[in-house]
Order: sequence, then C-alpha cells, then structure tokens
Amino acid sequence: MISSTAIAHLKEKLGDANVLHEKEDLLTLGYDSTPGVHHLPEVVVYPTSSEQVVAAMEIAEREGLPLTPRGSGTGLSGGSVPVKGGMVLCLTRMNRILEIDEENLTATAEAGVITLDLFNAVAAKGLFYPPDPGSQKISTLGGNVAENAGGLRGLKYGVTRDYVMALKGVLADRSLIATGGKSVKDVAGYGFKDLLVGSEGTLGIITEITVKLIPPPQDKRTILAYFDDVRTAGEAVSRIIAAKIIPSTMEIMDRAVINCVEDYVKIGLPRQMAALLLIEVDGHPAPVAEEAAGVRKILEEVKAAEIHVARDAEHAAGLAAARRTALSALARVSPTTLLEDATVPRSRLAETFGEIERLREKYQLKVGTFGHAGDGNLHPTVLCDERDHDEMARAHAFYNELYEQVLAWGGTVSGEHGIGLAKKEYLARQIGPGGVQVMKRIKQTFDPQGLLNPGKIFDEGDPCTKAHVEEGFRVSH
Amino acid sequence: MISSTAIAHLKEKLGDANVLHEKEDLLTLGYDSTPGVHHLPEVVVYPTSSEQVVAAMEIAEREGLPLTPRGSGTGLSGGSVPVKGGMVLCLTRMNRILEIDEENLTATAEAGVITLDLFNAVAAKGLFYPPDPGSQKISTLGGNVAENAGGLRGLKYGVTRDYVMALKGVLADRSLIATGGKSVKDVAGYGFKDLLVGSEGTLGIITEITVKLIPPPQDKRTILAYFDDVRTAGEAVSRIIAAKIIPSTMEIMDRAVINCVEDYVKIGLPRQMAALLLIEVDGHPAPVAEEAAGVRKILEEVKAAEIHVARDAEHAAGLAAARRTALSALARVSPTTLLEDATVPRSRLAETFGEIERLREKYQLKVGTFGHAGDGNLHPTVLCDERDHDEMARAHAFYNELYEQVLAWGGTVSGEHGIGLAKKEYLARQIGPGGVQVMKRIKQTFDPQGLLNPGKIFDEGDPCTKAHVEEGFRVSH
Repeated sequence: MISSTAIAHLKEKLGDANVLHEKEDLLTLGYDSTPGVHHLPEVVVYPTSSEQVVAAMEIAEREGLPLTPRGSGTGLSGGSVPVKGGMVLCLTRMNRILEIDEENLTATAEAGVITLDLFNAVAAKGLFYPPDPGSQKISTLGGNVAENAGGLRGLKYGVTRDYVMALKGVLADRSLIATGGKSVKDVAGYGFKDLLVGSEGTLGIITEITVKLIPPPQDKRTILAYFDDVRTAGEAVSRIIAAKIIPSTMEIMDRAVINCVEDYVKIGLPRQMAALLLIEVDGHPAPVAEEAAGVRKILEEVKAAEIHVARDAEHAAGLAAARRTALSALARVSPTTLLEDATVPRSRLAETFGEIERLREKYQLKVGTFGHAGDGNLHPTVLCDERDHDEMARAHAFYNELYEQVLAWGGTVSGEHGIGLAKKEYLARQIGPGGVQVMKRIKQTFDPQGLLNPGKIFDEGDPCTKAHVEEGFRVSH
Repeated sequence: MISSTAIAHLKEKLGDANVLHEKEDLLTLGYDSTPGVHHLPEVVVYPTSSEQVVAAMEIAEREGLPLTPRGSGTGLSGGSVPVKGGMVLCLTRMNRILEIDEENLTATAEAGVITLDLFNAVAAKGLFYPPDPGSQKISTLGGNVAENAGGLRGLKYGVTRDYVMALKGVLADRSLIATGGKSVKDVAGYGFKDLLVGSEGTLGIITEITVKLIPPPQDKRTILAYFDDVRTAGEAVSRIIAAKIIPSTMEIMDRAVINCVEDYVKIGLPRQMAALLLIEVDGHPAPVAEEAAGVRKILEEVKAAEIHVARDAEHAAGLAAARRTALSALARVSPTTLLEDATVPRSRLAETFGEIERLREKYQLKVGTFGHAGDGNLHPTVLCDERDHDEMARAHAFYNELYEQVLAWGGTVSGEHGIGLAKKEYLARQIGPGGVQVMKRIKQTFDPQGLLNPGKIFDEGDPCTKAHVEEGFRVSH
C-alpha cells in the first residue's frame, strides 16, 4: 500500500492534479484495450516533463512500487496493464509537438502526442507521417514507438520503427538518455534506439521522439473487391505483389467481419460475400493510374465477384473508415472479443485463411478475420463469452493450433500488437527458450531489479544462468 | 603463439586450404582499407559453414586467441584489423546465394556474398536490392550488415539496416541464433536483429542474411551540375529537398576531388569548377520526368555554372562510375589518405562546407571533399604523408575541430563507416561517457570475456561500474 507521505511527495513534485490515488479514479487505468485483463494500480501519475518522470520513478523505487508506463491504453496485448499493481505512469499530458523541421523533414514531439494529431500537424505543412495504427485517433506516439506499431499503410510505407530517428527517455536507473538525431545516416555505436523501439516499456520510458517525414503522395485510388471465397482474395494479394505493384494498403475482411461492420456502419456492404479486399494505391498520378489499372486487371483475372472503384476521395475515406471500425464492430457482437495478430510471409496468406477456416470448424467457434493482407498480418478474432469456460478452452486450443502452423510457415505470433501479457507463452514457442534468454539478458542489463513494466514479455524468475547458456542457448525460428 | 596442435585441429575441422598460418599468408589479412592500421594475426580461418564457425571459435577460446571476424576488408574505420592479434575469421568462402523468393520479395545469402553479386542475381529476376556502398564490387553482405553500410542511393532508399529482415549467426558463447523472418511485420520480443546490425562484429558473427527486395525503378535520369562555389551546391541540395523531390542519389565533389578524378579517369570534368553535383532521379517515367525538370529549374535558379543531362544510360553509368572512383583517385595523390565520415542534418550542408574550407586554410592542409550530399554525409579527405609528423598533427587538429562543430550541429561522427578503431575517441564525444557505458553494458552482456573483435568501438578496461551509473550515466547528443 502506497504511503500517504509518498502521495504527498508525488503531489509536491508533479502537482495535485497529476496524481490520482482514489479507487474510483484508478479503476479505468487498470485496463488497456485487451479483453479479460485488469489490475488496479495503487497510484497513477501524469508527469508533464522528463524531470517529473525521474521524480516519480524515484518515489516508486523508494516505495517499492513496480512501475507501468502507458499512453492512451489502446494496446491489444495487455502491455500497459499494471499486473503487479504499483504505479502507473501515464504520459498523455506530455503532449506537445515541439518542432516540425521542414528543411530536414523531421518532427519532434513528446511521447503523449496523439498519433493523428501529429499526422495532421505535419500534413498542414505539406508533409506526411505514414504510420497509421488502427487506433491512431486515440493512440499516442510514445505508445506507438514502445510497441513498434504497424497500421494500414505498412505494406508500402513500413511501420513505426522505420520512421524513428531519435529518442529521449529515462532508463530504469533514472539516467536520462538521448539516442539518434536528425542526420539521416548514423552508425556511431550500437543501435540502442532500435532496441528501445518495440521494447514495450520494459527497458526505458520514452519521453520524446523525433520522426522522419516524407513528401505526401499526390494522388490515391481506392478499389474495393468482393470475393465468393477467401482463398481467391488471398490469391489476388499474391498476384498483385508478384506484378510488382506495392499498394499503400491492402486490407481484408471475411464474411463475419463484413456483416458485423455492415450492422455497425450500414454502408451497404454485401453480406453474402466471403471476403472483401480494400486496396489503395497512392503516389504520383501517372503510376497511380497504371497501378489501379493493374490491380483491376488482376482482380478480373482471379474472378473477383465484384470490383468497385471509389467515386471520389470522400467515398474512399468512407470505405477506409469502415475498415477501421472492424474491431469495434466485432466487439459489439459478443461479450468477449479475442483478437490475435498472426503474421505469415505473404505467400502463405491463402493457406492461413484455409487453416483458420479448418480450425473454426474443428473447434466450433465464431471467428471473424480481418487484417493487413499485404503484410500477411491477420487478426483472427474469436467472438465468445468468457463466462463459458468450455468455449474459452476451445478458443485457446484454436489459437494454439493456429500459431503452431503460423510458426511452421516462418510466421510470427505478433505482427504489430506486441507480446505484453497476452502472448508470453507464444513468444517462447517462436524464439525458443534460448531466444527468451537473450531477451532476458538484455532486460537484466538495463533493469536488473525489474522495476519497469514487470510481468510483461516474459515471466520473472527463471533468470539467465550459466547452465542455460551451456545447454545450448539457441534462438531458433 | 598459436600451438601446432591448435593449427592441426583447425585444419581437421575446416580443411587444410581453409587455415592460413604462414607469415606471408597472414600479411594481407592484417589490413582493411583504413590507412595506417595494420596488425598481424596468428592464424586466419575461412569457415564454409556455421558449424565450422563454431568449431573455430571453440579452438580460439581454448587457445586464448582473440577473434576478429571480417569479410573483404573494405572497411574504412579499421573494424576488421586484428589489433589484438589472434585469429581472423574470414567469411568470404561462405558465399552462396541461398534463395531468391519472388513471392515474398526476399533474398537469403551467406555472409560472404559480394554485395554486387547479390544485386545482379536479384536484378536478373527483375528485383532490386538498393543498398550500394561505394565498395559494392568487393564488399560482402555480412560486412555491410555488421557496419550498417550506406551508399549512394541512401537518400531515397535508405541504408543496409532498412533491408535486413532476418539474420543467422553465432554469439560469443557459440550459441547459434536466428532472428527475424520473412514476415514483413514482426514485433515478437526485442529488436535483437536491429541490435546486431551495425554492431561491427563485436556482439556476434553473422553467417546468413535475409534481405528485403523491392521492384526496381522503371526509369532514371542523371543530371550533372557544376558550381563556381561549394555553398551554392549546398543550397541547391537544400532547395531540391524543400521542393519535395527526393532523388535516389545526390553526390557532391569539390574542386580537389574533381581534379583527382579527372586525372584518374579522364572523362573531361572541368577542372576549374568549385563543385559538382551528380543527381539521379528514378522511378516511374512520369514523376521521373517531372522531378528531373524540377531539379533543373532549381539548379538554374541558384545559378549553377553548368547543367548537363546525361545523354543515355551509358553516359549516366559513366558519370556514376567516375564518382565511385573518388576515393581511389584521391589515394593516388599522396602517400596517406585520411578519409572521414562527418554527417550533419541536411540543412547544415552548406555551412559544413564553409567550415571545412575555413579549417583547411587554418591548418594548411590539402583536403578533398566528396560524399552523399543528400544525406548530409561528407567525406572530407586529407591528402598527406604519415611520415610528416607535423602535417599529421595538423590533420588530427583539423578533424578534431571539424567534429566539434559537426556535433554542435547535431551531426554524427560516422554516417556509414562505423567506429571501429579509428573513431573511438570521437564516439565518446558524441554520445558522452554515459552513452559509451550503455554500449559497454550491451557488449558485456553478450561477450563478457571480450572474445569478439576486441579493441573496437571502445577500449577494454574501464568497465561499467555502479559508481558510473550513480554518477549520472547520461547519454547526451
């Protein structure tokens, strides 16, 4: 239990309004967007500067409180749930955009800036920040960096990691760090910045980020195709890439998702279709026109049931917005929504859909699948009720068997959601016990006492011993 | 001194032809392409499989031999010079291209494959591997990954790191590792792959690499501009980027380099000009035509002295090849060529040229500067004679003062050559003693006995102590 002296200290350092400790205030900070995981913190702090981050960390350490950093809590792997209680350090009030450097094509912002706010601010200067996680209206840039967030435009433009040029932050020992800069090339020392990206708040607290910007695409075409069966949609994706067309977006929804989305937004999606592909090509108008024609030709060749080209930008935006509602639309249907993040090499996409269908039948579950088809990144979502223990066991078995196949195909258990709490057991299966030991070595190097975001990525205890090393310590894939 | 038993063991494990230990054989393996650094190893091994890498490492450890991995030795920071003697492990005989996966747009190759061979092999399948370090005809892919090599196309296409999807290798404790895969998104665990990229052979030996490929540009235009003064060339670079044109290449040479290159290749470069910009725009023919016109307009606006558009692909290739000879051309002129790798945020380019000129005057040196102007990545090269101690002291003072300014502008002491031996003292100035301690913590985590490439990046001894941590342990930029 946090002492009243500590609360007083925190209030003194951070200001009364930036320290919450009443139970009713704490309730909502015990969640992120992952179903079925909740844990009350003892105190929540909202630092407004890196000095306040350090001050809060000092008090947390003195009080023996584990510390869980978070942004808006849009994470889907439980990474910001304070499973060990203690202090939640919420960065949403460090939300200033510090600079947009038009000469060097960079933007610098505090960790709590909303992703879409940054996108809009740079767009106002005629520049483009491509990473667009599904939650971009709510998610923070710091959270995006900590999770190495993906998004809908990843196929052509890459993910958050590809845009991080510099980071400032605080390590577990409260040292302030700054790594990277505005030089577009920098090989001075190890890629420490690259280690922090995707470290899920377990190696340090990121407070400030400099991202790379690019010139925006001048033109965009949106094409919507419906299919009588999912495998054909998968084949279309493979053929488009094989034709050397790299769309900015290539999103897929299966019948269950089409129906949930249509129930939710009522834009006239055809409920009987087995799958939908939403494809955007962007760039200079000339290649965009050619690529759109190329995509259309391939969709015709594979015999897509219907092919529609968005009439105008508004229509296109409506379709993209409908896709972004997929998770919310699914979440309305059943008490519990289990969302996974299986990612396979692109060539395995059609087979993965086949496997999902086979397992859905086998385990008699309601499953809707959507995702970033161009990246091989699927979100097979089980719609269930956590009070039904038999159903939950079947859902668990479904994912277990699916991941086994995904890993056999050289895929990954997480394309963009991170490991957090939800995927710890799957991580070990992917990278092996040796791989987990490599990760633990890194964790122990930077946070030997396990203060930062404890209980995430891998379990405590079972430290890296000499015996482990001698046993083989193999990371296999 | 290595024992004859150890030599016999090595020959047994690797084959007679893959173990060199006679002095005349060892001589050439004591160099890389960095002037003034040479050290004889005791033995050189050429493993042909990762099992042989492990076997050689085991014998090295048993014999107490430090181990320096290397590829072709084109490095420019002394990173593959065996300064502590011992064993050189040369990966040039692990040189198979294992797979070109046209569906997933990846290529997998052993570490010893020549960069240009990989480029050509994927080009034959209609695909494109963009990273093109100056030494691509000789350098190995493994060396490129270990150094995170840049190149001429970095401005638009990025550097080696941006293309590495998966790595296999051996850590200091001889555990085999595999990290990453063919999935284009993967956030399962820490970015260990990203830590290995650019670790200069100090954290592990990379044996196999999977890289991302992209569709090749369909068209290219090459423009050559001459300037009466270097600052105008710098201004042209800034204005081109500000106009949201991202050329694939934007290379600069000053008068000294123009003259050396002309002496060497005799293609009619105008010797009286202060600077030359070689600009390539590539992609779809329509934007390429527009971008070429946009570049030309800006060159006219800043009053470039002459503007030439390459007549055809052959002419363009000739110009690019001439640029690639810059280092060789300079190296012919004086007994010693000191090449540096200062990189600044692009907006500081013109000022950096001003500073180089000021310092050249101040220290009365012969300096030629060329580099990747679009990246702010310059190679100010002092042409001198290492037997002239006074001149060498002035050269040292020149670089010292230049780097001071480069760091004050938020630049880096190495854009693409790495720290190796040559820049250890500069690294500490850039990232601070705290930053060096962060790097050392990582090194100690993976190579506690300092077996791999000792003496590189930072000096041994001076370990990371609790006192250091408590002192502040700040990484500042």
